[in-house]
Amino acid sequence: MFPALDNAVRLLSTLPGIGERSALRIAFHLLKSDRQQVAELASALTNLCDQVQFCRQCASLAQQELCELCSDPQRDASLLCVVEEPGDVYAIERTGEFKGLYHVLMGALSPLDGVGPQDLRLNELFARIESSAPAELFLATNPTLEGDATARYIQDRLRGRSLKLTRISHGIPTGAAIEYADRSALARSVRARTSLE
Amino acid sequence: MFPALDNAVRLLSTLPGIGERSALRIAFHLLKSDRQQVAELASALTNLCDQVQFCRQCASLAQQELCELCSDPQRDASLLCVVEEPGDVYAIERTGEFKGLYHVLMGALSPLDGVGPQDLRLNELFARIESSAPAELFLATNPTLEGDATARYIQDRLRGRSLKLTRISHGIPTGAAIEYADRSALARSVRARTSLE
Repeated sequence: MFPALDNAVRLLSTLPGIGERSALRIAFHLLKSDRQQVAELASALTNLCDQVQFCRQCASLAQQELCELCSDPQRDASLLCVVEEPGDVYAIERTGEFKGLYHVLMGALSPLDGVGPQDLRLNELFARIESSAPAELFLATNPTLEGDATARYIQDRLRGRSLKLTRISHGIPTGAAIEYADRSALARSVRARTSLE
Repeated sequence: MFPALDNAVRLLSTLPGIGERSALRIAFHLLKSDRQQVAELASALTNLCDQVQFCRQCASLAQQELCELCSDPQRDASLLCVVEEPGDVYAIERTGEFKGLYHVLMGALSPLDGVGPQDLRLNELFARIESSAPAELFLATNPTLEGDATARYIQDRLRGRSLKLTRISHGIPTGAAIEYADRSALARSVRARTSLE
């Protein structure tokens, strides 16, 4: 009866964590809000994608081609930290315990969900290790089945190289997501990172 | 560090059912989506508010000043159904059991949340009863504390009038919302609506 409503509900339901009922609830909320607020939300969403991009090198969030961290000469380029998602970079940055550079994989290996090595930024990682030859590779994927499998996959692929491999210490509860970890527990885990070899 | 991200997260968190973490998750999802999809979502939200409005008479959804139901001469104007939200109108329409007109209150009385009679479309309801003099007023507010209190408030205000008052039968579980009720249970409740006097 209301194609504009159906369309809004259909598109809202594609967002993570929003089912059809929540989408309907949000649509009614927007209908009751004043038009200015809705326009503000709509332009915030397009601005987000216009003004924020993924860094060409590490794939964390950037305002230019290279992110602030990758273009900062003060950061220790001999230390490379591998994470699953851009949000993990900010979680680790907030601890103040890490002074190296990052590499975001954009996910973790998950055969059940059809996520294989080719779906992650792994080729970019190995090429980057090749060209920049860091001294330490700090594997800070989540301490979950998928994150552990991803860390093990990287470890296997780099076997025989003279590269120190470390893994984030499991001081944070297994099964939890780094992005949402308690800041001080995460800081401890970064400090107490363990060598894999 | 990324004002466009902060802004999107702040505005997304104002939507019902979305906290700061879900907002962040949605923002990252949008950043990874292609730009075309995000533009589509943004314009769906503004189109929603441009193309759908609340009916001047009953406050259900409308494409013009008067909704399809209020402007349909086939509907029985002697039968007026009072509901809390526009979504309730469509839930009751889907049962096919009601041929009258509707009046949406835009909420229910809830002193704890600061919702009093003046915050609902109650004056509009009483004025409408005055001018159109329906034979039956069918109170289909939700069978919750708030919905029951609202029905009772309307009943009290109309005491002494020659107007048949009915209440939706509690065939649907007490505490549930009409909008989401099982269609056949709701159809039964509409058929078996009970007289209040």
